[in-house]
Amino acid sequence: MVSELDVLLLPPAHQWPAADAYAVVDALRATTTAVLLLHHGARAVIAAESEAGARAVAQERGALLAGEVGGLPPPGFDMGNSPAEVGSHAVAGREVVLFTTNGTLALCAAAARGPAAAACALNAAAAARWLAERHRVAIVCAGEEHGTVFALEDLAAAACIVRALVAARPDLELGDGARLALMLPDPVTAIGASAHADALRALGLGEDIAAAQAVDTVQLVPVVTALGAGWVRLEPVRA
Amino acid sequence: MVSELDVLLLPPAHQWPAADAYAVVDALRATTTAVLLLHHGARAVIAAESEAGARAVAQERGALLAGEVGGLPPPGFDMGNSPAEVGSHAVAGREVVLFTTNGTLALCAAAARGPAAAACALNAAAAARWLAERHRVAIVCAGEEHGTVFALEDLAAAACIVRALVAARPDLELGDGARLALMLPDPVTAIGASAHADALRALGLGEDIAAAQAVDTVQLVPVVTALGAGWVRLEPVRA
Repeated sequence: MVSELDVLLLPPAHQWPAADAYAVVDALRATTTAVLLLHHGARAVIAAESEAGARAVAQERGALLAGEVGGLPPPGFDMGNSPAEVGSHAVAGREVVLFTTNGTLALCAAAARGPAAAACALNAAAAARWLAERHRVAIVCAGEEHGTVFALEDLAAAACIVRALVAARPDLELGDGARLALMLPDPVTAIGASAHADALRALGLGEDIAAAQAVDTVQLVPVVTALGAGWVRLEPVRA
Repeated sequence: MVSELDVLLLPPAHQWPAADAYAVVDALRATTTAVLLLHHGARAVIAAESEAGARAVAQERGALLAGEVGGLPPPGFDMGNSPAEVGSHAVAGREVVLFTTNGTLALCAAAARGPAAAACALNAAAAARWLAERHRVAIVCAGEEHGTVFALEDLAAAACIVRALVAARPDLELGDGARLALMLPDPVTAIGASAHADALRALGLGEDIAAAQAVDTVQLVPVVTALGAGWVRLEPVRA
């Protein structure tokens, strides 16, 4: 049962804190997209560290290729990184390789250190239930610029998970990142108040923000079940 | 005049964002102590990166030696890092070498990259006036564990500065760290709600928390005026 909880505002550059489980959040948009891909019936999401690696593993496995660089899908990708568009692609029963500039990197880094899953506002309650089975847990905000710049929307989505965990376990020992998350007066609105949200609106991708704000609408957690060279495979766990 | 503002939730591990001025915050307790040392008449504060370096520069300059390791003053130091005790030491006209495990390190790192000053809740309005003269400014939270772990009290004190800057310039372009700071409902209370505040109370140093919460009581800014090998010299600027 969970007893210690923190939120890492960025993936650590060097030393990661020891934890029994990591939930990685890249609310705009990678982990929201991963959750929706599995919700729409994809068999697995393979999160890749590099664009070249994503292309190679997709070809090798006959998987669909999804992702973005600078907000938009690179040439030859089957789809972008837009959660609002997931429902319009035929993903049921398929593996989908996902490459993005922050979220998939953070997922690979966390999975190298322990049990890891993808989380966002959509599966906040489910992610909280998955985390609640472990002793020490860390929610990892993916950030921007390859995980070097803080992204408000990630903390805001993490705050939805923290609230669910604290509601179930009020005596939880909280690190300062988790204490901060609890102080956010309106996490769902904060997802749309970030610089990244401004940038998506400027790209005409404002629907992705609304899609990322649909708190507690999905009851599954994409959990890392296999690690490859430069990628991790996530499969849906009902929690 | 200031046009871009961000708060860095930790000192960057690698690439620092370009800025025309950095204000470093280590609210519990280094920058609060530095502000109070100058407020009580110390001629300058010399912030040292290492304990050995602090001892050497203090001996060389005939300066007082202040600081902490694990919250308490090392053997042979003239005083600790306690803002509540600054008034009981004869610091007027003296140079004081300050070594702490996070704040002085962050000050040295920031000063290596551009104009830098020490800030906290006490001099929030003064620090905002000093920053307001520059174009792009960054407030740097010193954090814990040599700047690798987020400290809520630093963001809370930074929030006092952000509020003062935004009140004067509502059209300021804000990074996500600054947007987050503005969302804190009660920054002064948040200074006392951190894990570090809990640890100080456990050490019997609870008065330092109240001392760090005395927002806008000091109208000077400790500004870096000289860089040595492993130290920076801060002198009071009325702003």
